[in-house]
Amino acid sequence: MRNNLDRQLSFLVEADKLKSIVRQSPLIDRSRRENSAEHSWHLALYALVLAEHANESVDVGRVVGMLLVHDLVEIDAGDCPIHSPRPHIDQESRERAAADRLFGLLPETQGANLKALWVEFEQAQSADAKFAKSLDRLQPLLQNVHAGGGTWIESAVTQPQVCDRYGPTIRRGAQALWDCAFELVRKFYGAKQE
Amino acid sequence: MRNNLDRQLSFLVEADKLKSIVRQSPLIDRSRRENSAEHSWHLALYALVLAEHANESVDVGRVVGMLLVHDLVEIDAGDCPIHSPRPHIDQESRERAAADRLFGLLPETQGANLKALWVEFEQAQSADAKFAKSLDRLQPLLQNVHAGGGTWIESAVTQPQVCDRYGPTIRRGAQALWDCAFELVRKFYGAKQE
Repeated sequence: MRNNLDRQLSFLVEADKLKSIVRQSPLIDRSRRENSAEHSWHLALYALVLAEHANESVDVGRVVGMLLVHDLVEIDAGDCPIHSPRPHIDQESRERAAADRLFGLLPETQGANLKALWVEFEQAQSADAKFAKSLDRLQPLLQNVHAGGGTWIESAVTQPQVCDRYGPTIRRGAQALWDCAFELVRKFYGAKQE
Repeated sequence: MRNNLDRQLSFLVEADKLKSIVRQSPLIDRSRRENSAEHSWHLALYALVLAEHANESVDVGRVVGMLLVHDLVEIDAGDCPIHSPRPHIDQESRERAAADRLFGLLPETQGANLKALWVEFEQAQSADAKFAKSLDRLQPLLQNVHAGGGTWIESAVTQPQVCDRYGPTIRRGAQALWDCAFELVRKFYGAKQE
């Protein structure tokens, strides 16, 4: 038990590093960019609140768990911004190695279970994973809309590009959320042109 | 449905402000203090990983939900550091007003449910709440130990004061976690004296 606890605390101490992985998306007050730890918190809250809008019935607890661990691999492999070319051509293998190392800090069964949850998220085939993925796209979209453009302005992203990069993933997990998000995007680009 | 969704998104946008509430505890790499959003993420991960050590059987999903929302009231009421005198004598009523406003942004039933979860956490009587509270004390203790002292050094906090301020709450939810934490505290203060 004690040895298990030592391993669990090592994992939790290592996880602290996710607070230093800075993403592209801004805070809504535009004071700075958000980091992957607070992004993960926000997504878990999205799941708690928005589960009724998933296309298929989901297990909210599993979706929340998935979102809490989904970005941990960035501690070793870094973030992969949606509007930039992939910084590393071997990003997938870097993330797999990161998952092995990080979840490997935990007691064996627990580490294997959390790693399986991360793999399920990455594969995006189960109802829970499709919904988790749709939230992971919806949240930065809302950050950008409410921060007056954020990464879309910085990277000169057009309305069709936004629809192309966010739409399919959001729709696949939650059509109702995309219907609403599309309306926000349309209004945002409409106002920009006036 | 759409009106519900509008209210839910307003709540999630408002929740973004928790990322700007800065706590006393440092990141482990000492680069800055942590904020309440990333602290909440870290705690939710603690709950996922450490649930087996709770004194009583707990519902991990409920504990995680509780920890995701437990600090939202700080958006209006601010943080209350453990090693400082209370900044506002009316802190409790400020937090209740904050809970009314923030959870009131949500559709009625959902807002009432999440507010009830926050009240349960604050009352610290249920098994889930006692365990959530113990994690909320354990995490800053570990941040301080691994950051070389953190707020303990800054505020000249002694080993008996640490035991007094962290011990009862951690023990009440998870004796095994306190046994381990006490050992870390003892070693930390022992090394400091050498």
